[in-house]
Amino acid sequence: MKKAIILVSGGMDSCVTAACAVKQGYEPAFFHVNYGQLTQNRELKAFCDIADYYGVKDRLIVDIEYLKKIGGSSLTDRSIKVEEGTEPKKSGALPSTYVPFRNGNLISIAASWAEVINAGRIFVGAVDEDSSGYPDCTAEFFKKFNELFGAAFSSGFELKIETPIINLSKAEIVRLGTELNAPLHLTWSCYQSEDKACGVCESCFLRLRGFKNAGIKDPIEYK
Amino acid sequence: MKKAIILVSGGMDSCVTAACAVKQGYEPAFFHVNYGQLTQNRELKAFCDIADYYGVKDRLIVDIEYLKKIGGSSLTDRSIKVEEGTEPKKSGALPSTYVPFRNGNLISIAASWAEVINAGRIFVGAVDEDSSGYPDCTAEFFKKFNELFGAAFSSGFELKIETPIINLSKAEIVRLGTELNAPLHLTWSCYQSEDKACGVCESCFLRLRGFKNAGIKDPIEYK
Repeated sequence: MKKAIILVSGGMDSCVTAACAVKQGYEPAFFHVNYGQLTQNRELKAFCDIADYYGVKDRLIVDIEYLKKIGGSSLTDRSIKVEEGTEPKKSGALPSTYVPFRNGNLISIAASWAEVINAGRIFVGAVDEDSSGYPDCTAEFFKKFNELFGAAFSSGFELKIETPIINLSKAEIVRLGTELNAPLHLTWSCYQSEDKACGVCESCFLRLRGFKNAGIKDPIEYK
Repeated sequence: MKKAIILVSGGMDSCVTAACAVKQGYEPAFFHVNYGQLTQNRELKAFCDIADYYGVKDRLIVDIEYLKKIGGSSLTDRSIKVEEGTEPKKSGALPSTYVPFRNGNLISIAASWAEVINAGRIFVGAVDEDSSGYPDCTAEFFKKFNELFGAAFSSGFELKIETPIINLSKAEIVRLGTELNAPLHLTWSCYQSEDKACGVCESCFLRLRGFKNAGIKDPIEYK
């Protein structure tokens, strides 16, 4: 069985992405980072629960506290407020939750691991259109990363990023996850609460709207 | 003054690269990683000494122990032997010191920092031809990374990697460093010793050959 590394934050998108990789016949290797974000402990629990659900053997959990040291985001800097989700998005304006080049960091770590465990794919649950507008979540970003991979490894090793849900809406992701029996009840999306989801941050806002538009009840608890 | 981040391992190549950035009029911001490599403490001392020499204010030192956790290299796994340097290189064979996608990881961290401190350049002291043959040290690799950067940041921020010594031989690097008054006496290149350089590992081998071919005496001590 061919191995695929899946970036699993513990949220809904990465959970459905893992379900896609499993559906495609890959043996999943799960990768997670703690980077000093507000809901670090809750996200790690969601990661472990989803990994257990899929019986994942290869797991890599790393601490990259340096993103907190570098700062510049409300997810890693307690002095910057996490704003509430709004509709429609202000064009061009990035939310304070943006962590510069975060996906570049995560994919780079996964790439180092991929060559060591001989995994030819990295699955990333990025969503382009129906999202917060982060520049490191676009199809163009991942295309360029794949081109970089073509020049980055020792001969004989090939690596490619797959982004199966990048063009889906949140409602379509909810429907796909339900269809694939992805354990959405084990996921965590909220940016700022760890007991019950706040229901108002941008991540909760997008998730709730997705479930509502899909006509499916969100199985997690809200305040 | 425009800021440039310089990846400073503490070795000769990154020291001369820092000298190039200073010569070009950039305000240098120094970046260093500890990744569980054998000579971690000695390299960190060299980094600090070189930063002091240039009066550098912006310094970022991060621990990325995950590269050790991931393994696959004699620099991070004590059970794999660091081989001696040889001439000529075996074509196609990578030395055991290869750390998969290491430069991808370092550049990604630097890129996150760059957007936060508004530095438009990252200087990397990679050497292509006269080196160990690591795939993440080629001109093509950095070209692809620059193309990725074009699709990676919020609007208005532009970032570019500079590799001023990539096509130089080790002897030319020694001569250039000497000409620019780079503090070569403060640098550390040895892969396996922390008191006096071993003189036989691949890194010492390339360095010593460079000084010899340049007709200049290496100012550091060897066993």
